[in-house]
Parts: sequence; structure tokens; C-alpha cells
Amino acid sequence: MTTHMDAEEFRRNGHAVIDWIADYWASLERRPVLSLDQPGAVAGRLPSAAPERGEDFDRILADLDAVVMPGVTHWQHPGFFGYFPANVSGPSVLGDLVSSGLGVQGMLWATGPACTEVETVMLDWLADLLDLPARFRSSGTGGGVIQDSASSATLVATLAALHRASKGRWRGDGVEGRYTVYTSTQGHSSIEKAARIAGIGDGNVRPVEVDDRTLAMDPAALRSMLEADIAAGARPALVVATIGTTSTTAVDPIPAIGAICREYGVWLHVDAAYAGASAVCPELRWTHAGLEYADSYCFDPHKWLLTGFDCDAFWVADRAELVEALTVLPEYLRNAASESGAVLDYRDWQVPLGRRFRALKLWFVLRWYGAEGLREHIRGGVEMAAGFAGRVRADDRFEVVAPHPFSLVCFRLRDADGVDGDAASAALLARVNAGGRIYLTHTRVRGAYALRLAVGAPQTRASHVEEAWRLISAEATAVLAG
Amino acid sequence: MTTHMDAEEFRRNGHAVIDWIADYWASLERRPVLSLDQPGAVAGRLPSAAPERGEDFDRILADLDAVVMPGVTHWQHPGFFGYFPANVSGPSVLGDLVSSGLGVQGMLWATGPACTEVETVMLDWLADLLDLPARFRSSGTGGGVIQDSASSATLVATLAALHRASKGRWRGDGVEGRYTVYTSTQGHSSIEKAARIAGIGDGNVRPVEVDDRTLAMDPAALRSMLEADIAAGARPALVVATIGTTSTTAVDPIPAIGAICREYGVWLHVDAAYAGASAVCPELRWTHAGLEYADSYCFDPHKWLLTGFDCDAFWVADRAELVEALTVLPEYLRNAASESGAVLDYRDWQVPLGRRFRALKLWFVLRWYGAEGLREHIRGGVEMAAGFAGRVRADDRFEVVAPHPFSLVCFRLRDADGVDGDAASAALLARVNAGGRIYLTHTRVRGAYALRLAVGAPQTRASHVEEAWRLISAEATAVLAG
Repeated sequence: MTTHMDAEEFRRNGHAVIDWIADYWASLERRPVLSLDQPGAVAGRLPSAAPERGEDFDRILADLDAVVMPGVTHWQHPGFFGYFPANVSGPSVLGDLVSSGLGVQGMLWATGPACTEVETVMLDWLADLLDLPARFRSSGTGGGVIQDSASSATLVATLAALHRASKGRWRGDGVEGRYTVYTSTQGHSSIEKAARIAGIGDGNVRPVEVDDRTLAMDPAALRSMLEADIAAGARPALVVATIGTTSTTAVDPIPAIGAICREYGVWLHVDAAYAGASAVCPELRWTHAGLEYADSYCFDPHKWLLTGFDCDAFWVADRAELVEALTVLPEYLRNAASESGAVLDYRDWQVPLGRRFRALKLWFVLRWYGAEGLREHIRGGVEMAAGFAGRVRADDRFEVVAPHPFSLVCFRLRDADGVDGDAASAALLARVNAGGRIYLTHTRVRGAYALRLAVGAPQTRASHVEEAWRLISAEATAVLAG
Repeated sequence: MTTHMDAEEFRRNGHAVIDWIADYWASLERRPVLSLDQPGAVAGRLPSAAPERGEDFDRILADLDAVVMPGVTHWQHPGFFGYFPANVSGPSVLGDLVSSGLGVQGMLWATGPACTEVETVMLDWLADLLDLPARFRSSGTGGGVIQDSASSATLVATLAALHRASKGRWRGDGVEGRYTVYTSTQGHSSIEKAARIAGIGDGNVRPVEVDDRTLAMDPAALRSMLEADIAAGARPALVVATIGTTSTTAVDPIPAIGAICREYGVWLHVDAAYAGASAVCPELRWTHAGLEYADSYCFDPHKWLLTGFDCDAFWVADRAELVEALTVLPEYLRNAASESGAVLDYRDWQVPLGRRFRALKLWFVLRWYGAEGLREHIRGGVEMAAGFAGRVRADDRFEVVAPHPFSLVCFRLRDADGVDGDAASAALLARVNAGGRIYLTHTRVRGAYALRLAVGAPQTRASHVEEAWRLISAEATAVLAG
């Protein structure tokens, strides 16, 4: 008889894991942000094969500390300012825990009605919180769904766009002829990857020039490219506009881009992976103006809205168009509910067939924090970033290199007499990260090397951002002293 | 200040959720397997908008029971025999809980060394447990990675196959000309979906005839199709062979198929989504003979190996070929470790960029059960299914319609004087499922309607399968009495 973990063992071990996480979170500030492990170190601490006989849970938990933890980079650390935040929270962890325990597979409405319906309603709640256009609500022609990530959302949008641009021929015949995709030079790498995966070829992703100051897409440049490509026989399928680019959080002008897309009949996908969360605050919704032009839109609650990975919220204006692009129906999935037309089957809204009950963590988060708590979280991040940018601006050695409407600040050491700003900035980043107290990443802005400080980890307070500035400033002194 | 859940609240609420899950598992047998909710019932129990102010955790947990649970289909119920199992276990839930708490995003080795290295080692452990060919281990040219599902594994294999078949042109130029994909008439719908997503067109998926008795792919038919397509100017890119088809668990003859793929230079992907887990038992490894021909292979620990969704284990024989097909490298992801070449960056092995630390649940499961425990779990399922098939065979009203090497039995009411076997079998399924004690799904085998009984939920014991037979037998009497 297989030795399953019985109820009492599960309770005891489960309480121990909960305590372990609580202790871990409490210990974060004392840990170095980055793992100090060299490549191969974690693997070297693991045996070369699975045990023949089962082991005690206490031993497994002890090895978690001894084997795994030295190799962990602490994304929830208050000094984690790298990439974009991928924050998590107590209610998210517990909602996801319920999902694991239920073990529901919600590929069809019929295989877990609650898994589907809670998700539809949570995406409507989010649409309401962000004040998205009515067409994205499930009460109209649209609706929302959870994708694993914004990359997958972009891919799904690309597929629906091909379905439309080919007038339905693409499903059976594949990509015939040359389709083109447009995004700004600042668009995310997942757009290129989606075009490659979809068989368009990443060479057919056209980088549209941006405004030199704001780094936002230039609509006139988009129009010129579209016209030139059409004249050359290509078929424009998709424009991806970004609210909050990965490099600097630039905001593309959606109203102007949207009008062009409508004129040319091109699918408009708006990628707000990181910055979309900010639309819970009315004062930041100017970034979402023009969204009524979008055919699809997404943002990641798993970035800046306290919901653990994976949770990308993706909406379409016309769900029938999406389902038509993606549906497949083998005999073994036929069922009365699907045939009634009264339910949504989310398998037809995504690449995989199976899906877990991810809406639970969103439900727990939205109820625990309430709209008010989420707004405070976003406002805190924006305010801390603004404070940091103020520090940088007040120091002549530095420059802030891009607008910072959200919680990311891009900055660098200036070029000066005897100072190569690129080299100095790269050296500064290396020194700052080596200290273990904070972690920043980099990008290039207008070709110049720049540091990125992204606020958003749940434990980050103004004092941590202050400390970050002190460390950066002190290391800059050391770098500039040579 | 945003009101985060503090450490003491997290402990208290976390212990409550753990207890809730333990109680839920203990209550499963007393619950109806299927939700009785009508479409819209769950949504109707939810408010139309998120609360403005945060709510107490106790209220959220109470609503879990009142609002969500009536809409849950219980995949872990001992009477759940539908589809394939999607089983979970205590150690899996707790490993995933640790992952949620760490909140690590492992897109790069550098963003979480342990997230990458534990995964590489766990996939090597699994390769060892299943006795996969050496070329799939990370110590050679290959290696494994966790995908969300076998659908995504098939997609990734399709992309690598296009990269190879196009001699690298596909990345930049897209799908040019007509590529073809081959799988048996019994292949999973995800193969068609992957071909559609990849821009090949699902019309270019060629269904290869099967042996009428075993329902396994006929290699001679594969060869004829390949030759005819090549003669017609198509470029065969991929063959997907299946170990354990979804409909009946047929096993394609990999040695013969593999030799043909090698002869024509076509990528061979072997999809063992459900049945791969059985290879932990030496006596069931005959199904995996010929795997040394495969370019890629996958199975789902989240189906029959006690690891919660999502966890598809996917291996390639040549990781360089896969990475070359999928890599993109924007400036903001550049880092010293990646450039050293000493690490794996799993973002280049999958569709999305981000990824959670899914290897932890696998590590917990493999250690808790040990190889021995996993084998017992599989053997128990195979034995119970064989026992059930014996009951069916001993009853003249029924027929077993396909071989059952694993834990799925396909059967139906025979056609007889005054009995339309299809209609009677469909009626039988409806009656059996309406009772709430067990849940089976259906398929069509050689055109005939058949019921599928898949054993694999962790709590299922011989007594539950016996009860299933008693219910089916009694309902059959009622159906046949008209």
C-alpha cells in the first residue's frame, strides 16, 4: 500500500510549512538579496538519484534550509529593486494553497464550474477596479481569463490577430504570405518571441520609432511603416502598444495608435504587464486613455498587485473571435454544458488544455486588501520611486534618463571629464549588487547604460529606498574615485 | 499604509487553511463527485464588485464553503474515474506552498539559481526513475524542464522541429511553404492545436491509420504518407508518437516509428502525458522501448504521479537545438552567469518568460514517497483497473473495447437484439454520473460510443472500484430494461 501522508501528518507538516514561511518572511531583511552560490552549487548539494524509500518530512524541510535556501534569490526582500517586482502576499499564498488542495483541473466549465465562474467574475471585478471599457466585461461580448504570463497573452493575441487577418484561413492552412507585427523599439521581447512561435517570423516584427524624450511610440512612424509594408505586399496583422515598457515604463499614446489600427483593420493588443496595476488609482488612469480601441489588453497581478506568479489578467473585446481561433473539440471533451452554449470553456482561451484554479488567489487578495488597500499599495510604490528620483536629480553626478510615472526609476552616472558614464554606471551596479543589501538591474536607454530601481516588493518601505540611495551614492563616490 | 497580513495573522490563517484542506480531503467520500450547480450559479453567489475595504480572513474562508464549494467537481474524490486522473498529494501541496511563499521568479538562472538547478536535478532523477535514454540527461547533450502541460510540450517540440526542418530560416522568416505533422488518428487534440499555433495549419496534421485491434499507429501507413507528402512538395517536420493515447491508452510502436523518422530526418516527439508515469515500474517499461530514437519526450507527473497541476516533465536529446529555436535576449535580461555559458536559462526552453519554482513539489513528492512508494501507487492503479476489466468481461452484456495496459478501461454495452449499444452506453453513463457517487467520461472507439473508467485518484481503493462496478452493473440493468 502506498504510504500517503495521512490527515494528521498533513496537519502537522502543513502547520510547520506555514510557520516556515512566516519565519522566512520575517528573516528576509537579514538575508543577502542575491544568492551567493556559484553555478552548480545547488545541484552539488543534491544526491544524484531519488531515494529508494520514502523519507520523513522533517528531513525534507531541514534540507530545504540546507540545500535550497543558499541558492535562492529573494524576490520578496525589501531591498529587491530588480526587473519588475513579482510580489506575493499572505492572502495570495493561502488562496493558492486552497487551489493546490482542491486539485481541480478546470479545462472545461464542466470539469469545475467554480474554477471557471470565479475566474470570470474576478476578471470582471478587476475590469471594474481598473475602469476598463465595458466591452471587456463578460456581460458584453468580451471577457477576461487568467494566462500564465503576459508573454502567453501576447501569443494568444497574435493568434487571434492572424485568424482575423487571414479571414479564417490561417486555422487550417497556416501562415501563408507575409504578415507583419508592429511594436515600438521599446516593446517587450515576448512580442518577437510570439511572432516567431506563431510562424510569422521575428524578422517581420517591425520596430516603430519612439519619441526621444518620452520613449513612447510615434504614431506617425507607425502609419508610415504600415503604408510602406502594405505597398510592399505584406499583411499587417497586429500592433502591440505598451503601457509601461519594460526598459523605462514609457506609455505609448493609445488614442492615436488605436485610431490608426481601426483605420487599417489591424488587431490592437495593449500590453500593460507591469503598469496596468496602477490603474486601480484614478489619478493614474490617464495612462489607459484610448483603451476602447483595443481588441485585447493584459496586465499582471503577479507583478505589482500582490498576487503570486502565475497570474496574468487578459481581456478580449470579442470572445467569439478568440474562441474561434483556438478551439479544438475531440470527442472525449464533448459535454452537455459546452453544447448548451451557456458556459465558457477556458481551454479555448489559452495555449494549454489543463488549468488550475488560479482565480482563488485573486479572490483572496481582492477581498483581503479591498480596493482601498490595493490603491494604497500602488500609491506607496509611486511615492517611494518619486522620492528616490528626487534624490538622484539633486545629485549632479547622476541623471534620471526617462520619465517615471510609476514605481521604476532609470538613472545613470553622467558622462563627465574623465568619466565614461556607461562604464561607471556598470561598475556602480556591480558594486551595489555585491553588497547584498539591495539588488538593481540595468537596461540601455537611447544606447546608454542605465540602472533600473523598481519599487514594489511588499516589505519595501521608504526607509529601504532611503538606504538604497545612501548605498548607491556611497558606491558612486568609490567608483568615481577610481 | 497598506494593511498586509502580518506574521501572526499569516500563521493563524495559514493553519486554518491547512486544517480546511485536511478536513476537505477527509470529507471527499461523503460529497457528490460532480457539482450540482447550474451554469451561472457560482457567479450568482458572488457580489458584482470587489469590496472597497479589506475583509476579515474568517469571512473569506467561510465564503469558500458557501460560495465556491458547491461549484467544485472533486477531482481527488475516490469515485473520480473521469478523463485521466489529475492527482495531488500532501507532499506536493506543501512543496508548492513553499514555492508560493518564496515567490521566486526563475526566468534566468541568475534570478533564482536553486529554482533552475533543483529543476534540472529533479528531471534527471525522473529520467533515472523511468530509465530514459542517457541522451535526455543534463550530463549529456540533453536535459529536462517543467512545462505547464503536455500541450505546451508538444508546441515546444513543434517549434524545435520547424527550426530544424527549415535549417534555421523559420526563426526570422516564419513558416514558408507547406510543412506537415504526423500523428495517429488517436493522437491528442493538442497536436492539432500546436500545429495551428505554430502557423503550420491544422489541415497539415496528417492522421496516420492505426491497427484495428490495438489502436496503435501503423508504421507502414506512416511511411506511405511521408512519401506521398514529400512527392507532393510538402516538408515533413514532426512525428508525434503516443505512449498511452487519451482515448484508450494505445501504445504506438516507437522502435518502428523512430527508425522511419531517422531515415527521413524528421523530429520525433513522444507524448506519454498520462502513461509515462508507469515507467517507474520495470515491468511496464516495454511501452517505452525505442525511446532512444526520440528527439523529445514528455509525461505529466500532474496526472498519475501524485504531483499537483501544473507539472509536465519534458526532455530533449539536444538542448542546444531547442534553445536556438526559442532564445531571445533583450538588454534587460543580460547577465554574467548567462554569458559564462555555465548555466541553463529555462526561459529559452518554454513559451512564457516567467516561471515559478515548480521543482519543489516534485522534490517533496519524490522524497516523501521514494521510488518504492511511486511504484506501489502505479501498480495499485493497474491492478484495480485489471480487476474492473475482469468484471466487465465476465458480464455478457458488456464488452471491453481496447487493451488496458495501464489504469484506464474502455467498455460499452454490446449491440444486441433490441439494444443499440451506443444509445444504451450513453444512457448508462448519464445514469451513473447522476448518482453522485462516481464519475466516468466517454469516448468513441472505432466509431462506437464507449465509457472510460480511469483509476488514479489518491484515495481510490479496490473497494471504490468494486462499488463502481456494482453501480454500473445495476444501472445497466435499468437501462436495458428500458
